[in-house]
Order: sequence, then structure tokens, then C-alpha cells
Amino acid sequence: MAEFEIDPRILSGSEPLARLKLCDARLGNDARWPWIILIPRKPGAREIEHLAPKDRAQLMEEAVIAGHAVRAMGAALGRPVEKLNIGALGNVVPQLHAHVVGRRADDAAWPGPVWNLPGATAYEPAALARAKAAALDLLQSAALKAAS
Amino acid sequence: MAEFEIDPRILSGSEPLARLKLCDARLGNDARWPWIILIPRKPGAREIEHLAPKDRAQLMEEAVIAGHAVRAMGAALGRPVEKLNIGALGNVVPQLHAHVVGRRADDAAWPGPVWNLPGATAYEPAALARAKAAALDLLQSAALKAAS
Repeated sequence: MAEFEIDPRILSGSEPLARLKLCDARLGNDARWPWIILIPRKPGAREIEHLAPKDRAQLMEEAVIAGHAVRAMGAALGRPVEKLNIGALGNVVPQLHAHVVGRRADDAAWPGPVWNLPGATAYEPAALARAKAAALDLLQSAALKAAS
Repeated sequence: MAEFEIDPRILSGSEPLARLKLCDARLGNDARWPWIILIPRKPGAREIEHLAPKDRAQLMEEAVIAGHAVRAMGAALGRPVEKLNIGALGNVVPQLHAHVVGRRADDAAWPGPVWNLPGATAYEPAALARAKAAALDLLQSAALKAAS
């Protein structure tokens, strides 16, 4: 069986956050939006249909948890999230992954989508630490709840 | 309880296809991409977290079925789908809805996302009929399987 590895293009644009039941959760390193990327640990999967139905349901639940974490990130950064955007595209990086992004009517792409926009902006170290802590807090309490 | 109604902005850009267990499925009327819109019949829902977990799992299954239907549409139009894009955004129309879109490396937006792009192109009537028949065939056989 092939080993699970995350595509280097995902790795280079994101920071590790947490290992959920199905997915590795990573923080998208673009300070324009609170953003979490979920990568199911299923080597070779490129489309959602490549997951078994129970894993698809789990991906959905992890996307909901990631949505809460994205809201926590937005709040920690002083920019509360007004709308979640969830997408699985894979046009650039074929490895199956899902994006959960926090949007606001005053953000850099509203109301258009965020994907493939030029101008990614690295976080200030202090802001990154705040965003990470807020996301982790939420993801870890969700993981504890799931395990109890 | 509020009645289920589809936002007029969704209605005006799409054609009715089928009533699935959770969602109304509609064909996105933009000939640039085979496209299905799923609208859960849950009045007031704006985010996926507003659905109960079993409905979230059902939405995921209907997105997978819609993906097969989008592939069937692409094949019927002589432009086989190479990648599915699935997204729930709601920045323009807040009513919860999910998009399932068939992409090709030679399409009008590749590798960027399709949402909010100007230039929507109406189908020729014959092509629309072919696309609709191919999608319906798939959606009805999935509905029959689910009921059996």
C-alpha cells in the first residue's frame, strides 16, 4: 500500500495544525483569510468519490469542525468570519484536499472565490501564533469530544 | 415552519432536474461547464453546519451522485470531464447550496475556479436537451437504487 504523503505544493503554502481522525488539518498561510486545508490520509485519492461513504461523511464532519476553527481564527485576529466557503477543487494539486475559508464582505476577493488569486500575504509571526492557537484549541476540543 | 423556496437568483440561472432525497438538483445554465446545483430543502439553512449530521452525510452522497451526472453531461456534450470541482460558497446567494462542476484543462477558467466569472453562455437548445437527458438518466437511476 502506498504511503501517505502530502503534496509539496500544499506543504509549502501551509502550516501543520492537527491530525484529525481522517484528515491532516493545516493552516493556509495567507493572512488575507483564516483558512484550513483538510487532507484525507488516503494515498491516491483525487476525487471525493474515491473515499468510502463513511470516510466521505467523516470528511464532512471534519469540514464542519474546521469551519468552527476558522471562525475562532477570525475572532482571534479581530476579523470575525461572516461566511464560510468550502471547496474541493484540485485543479492545481490533484491530491484530494478540501479548503475551509472564512470570508467577510470587506475581504480582498469578496464576493468572488479565493482560489488561485495572486498576492498571498504571509502572516506576521505574532498573528500566526494567535491564529494557530485559536484553531488548535477548537480542533483539539473537537478531537477530545469525538474520542469520549 | 417556513416553507422551502429556492432563491430567485438560483432559479434564474438554472433549470430543474430532479428531486433527490435531501436536495433539489438543478442544471447550471452555463454551457461553458457541465454544472449541477444542489439545494437542500431546509428553509433558513445558510451554512453546512446548519444541517443535522445525517443530512450533511446525505448532502455528501448527493454531491457524489451529482458528480457522476456531471461526468455524464460532459460525455454527452463531447467534452469528457477531467476533474470535479465541488464548492459551497454562498457569498452572493446566502441560501445553502452546493455546486458540482466538471472541469477540463482546456476550459475557460482552468485552473482557476468557475464562480463569479462573467460571460455565462446559454446552451443551444439541442445541447441543453442532451445534457439534461444525460444528467437525468444518472440521477434517476441513483434515486431508484437509493429507494430499493
